[in-house]
Amino acid sequence: MRTVKVPLGERSYSIVIGRRVADRVGRACEKLGFAARCAVITDDQVGPRHSPRVLESLRKAGFDPVLLTIPAGEPAKNLKQVEALYHELAAHQLERRSCLVALGGGVVGDVAGFVAGTYLRGLPLVQLPTTLLAQVDSSVGGKTGVNLPAGKNLVGTFHQPRLVLCDLATLDTLPEREFRAGIAEVIKYGIIRDAAFFNQIETDLDRLLGREEATLGAVVARSCEIKAEVVARDETEAGLRAILNFGHTIGHALEAITGYSQYLHGEAIAIGQVAAARLSARLAGLPEAEVERIRALFDRVGLPTEVQLSAAQKKSLLQAMQLDKKVSGGRFKFVLAEAIGQVRWGVPVPEKAVLEALSA
Amino acid sequence: MRTVKVPLGERSYSIVIGRRVADRVGRACEKLGFAARCAVITDDQVGPRHSPRVLESLRKAGFDPVLLTIPAGEPAKNLKQVEALYHELAAHQLERRSCLVALGGGVVGDVAGFVAGTYLRGLPLVQLPTTLLAQVDSSVGGKTGVNLPAGKNLVGTFHQPRLVLCDLATLDTLPEREFRAGIAEVIKYGIIRDAAFFNQIETDLDRLLGREEATLGAVVARSCEIKAEVVARDETEAGLRAILNFGHTIGHALEAITGYSQYLHGEAIAIGQVAAARLSARLAGLPEAEVERIRALFDRVGLPTEVQLSAAQKKSLLQAMQLDKKVSGGRFKFVLAEAIGQVRWGVPVPEKAVLEALSA
Repeated sequence: MRTVKVPLGERSYSIVIGRRVADRVGRACEKLGFAARCAVITDDQVGPRHSPRVLESLRKAGFDPVLLTIPAGEPAKNLKQVEALYHELAAHQLERRSCLVALGGGVVGDVAGFVAGTYLRGLPLVQLPTTLLAQVDSSVGGKTGVNLPAGKNLVGTFHQPRLVLCDLATLDTLPEREFRAGIAEVIKYGIIRDAAFFNQIETDLDRLLGREEATLGAVVARSCEIKAEVVARDETEAGLRAILNFGHTIGHALEAITGYSQYLHGEAIAIGQVAAARLSARLAGLPEAEVERIRALFDRVGLPTEVQLSAAQKKSLLQAMQLDKKVSGGRFKFVLAEAIGQVRWGVPVPEKAVLEALSA
Repeated sequence: MRTVKVPLGERSYSIVIGRRVADRVGRACEKLGFAARCAVITDDQVGPRHSPRVLESLRKAGFDPVLLTIPAGEPAKNLKQVEALYHELAAHQLERRSCLVALGGGVVGDVAGFVAGTYLRGLPLVQLPTTLLAQVDSSVGGKTGVNLPAGKNLVGTFHQPRLVLCDLATLDTLPEREFRAGIAEVIKYGIIRDAAFFNQIETDLDRLLGREEATLGAVVARSCEIKAEVVARDETEAGLRAILNFGHTIGHALEAITGYSQYLHGEAIAIGQVAAARLSARLAGLPEAEVERIRALFDRVGLPTEVQLSAAQKKSLLQAMQLDKKVSGGRFKFVLAEAIGQVRWGVPVPEKAVLEALSA
């Protein structure tokens, strides 16, 4: 078992990584002093598999949990779902010291996090991420949000969890496609902050793809450490935190113009990161050989690295990028790599270059 | 012109009180460094009267404002309205540095504040309150929110404004009933924190009701000072800030069970404060003569001080109070006065006593 601290003053919390750590949720919540009435928010795929032991752990510790289930998948990440959850929380009389436990992947974490950030102006939140992507990224750092028809994560809050439990056992049954998509965020941490970690992923990739526990635990922990360090320096993305968006401006836009259904988030940002690497070669001095190393690693994971778009799709993509939160003064601002492990942010990039970078 | 500072570290801001201070909004926003594209959110009663000079001030300072109008009145304070505003902000491509200017009463401020707190995970907000109630209370302190069918302000965030401009000229045309309702919050500040201010309101009441500018400016400024001091000590209501809810637990429940249409907020909390004063006599040592002083002052203002409820309404009232954010561990917790100017919070109160306090 490993523990990573996220140092944010009064809002500091721990990320605990290990096999079956979900079974500890009840005692952990007891230590945190939450009210007896609480809610576990999950989806209809994860819930049947993992909610029984989470509910049991909570009940054993004296809690009175209600189980709330949303449909699995990105389309559920909307305001209608949020509103339905508010009504449930009111009906079950949750109060200010009642905690919400988010049990699921990124969608559950983002929706439950937004509800926790806004119901009664903020309830305590415990993240229990059950996908690799959620364990290494979305459950840590306090970003919550839902999509609008106009774009991804356009509505949200910063609301830090009180605890994150990354139970590696929940990854055993994760579908192969989702597991591989999660590795896209892991690779990102190497590119933006740690060349040695990137090398290690290259070396250990077969063991990682085989979900060997020691490798998996080390990779999740190092990813969380890098994210925690960046978030601690810039909680609300005034500057540095933007580097976590490497590959995301294009990735989010791709998801938006394909109705959030064609690509998993990790797949979209794999394409986005390879495009960002190509732009980095053009505009930030990243050697071409390193672009190829990045592309080859995503390729070995089985993730897409390019996309062919029609003229109409290209126009939609640029429009979706305009709406992205990373636009400032009406111009695209990108995170670009000077080398693997070293990026800079806020680099203006022309539209034409973006489109050219989408394929080799 | 008077300025009250709200000292909250990085989130500190000023409240500027005076005649025609709304005309300064453009230059003030320029100094704060906001993006050119911005939005003025108002309602269909306030907008026609005051938005032209606000828009003109913004345009003169180089801004490109879009005017967004919601229906006037408490029923508009809902999630559907919030969603409609999100879509407008996306359609008009507001970005992270774009500010929202809330031009209106408490409903506009709460709705625009919630939208500002959640769109793109937080946009800068300027409050331009146009009712007495909004100037002395809701525009200051960062509470935002909307109602659910189950209760008032059940959904919201803490999102501090960057600036508050209390333009006394906007009060000239405020309907008499609304003006008097606003005085309910002014009296509250005397009861919870400042006996001398309570005395002053008693002495100056006729001048205040006559909207004499010197009296009005002094009363708005002192109210804002008290609120700022309380908020600065406890921004997110971990403790002390609860005293601002004096009279509100019953007041909110009364509003909820009458569909937010029978009472103005100030009227409901006038009844709530008189009931809280009666409970204070029973449970916190407030002398009976002071209860009568409080009741008499609300009465002089022309505000209701009691309510007769049917058995069914009483049951609904207690249920609505259960949902209130001030419930902890399933028990009602009240703010009660030991003396005028001195309250304590978190006092447990039995249901029966609540019902008895609703009338003399």
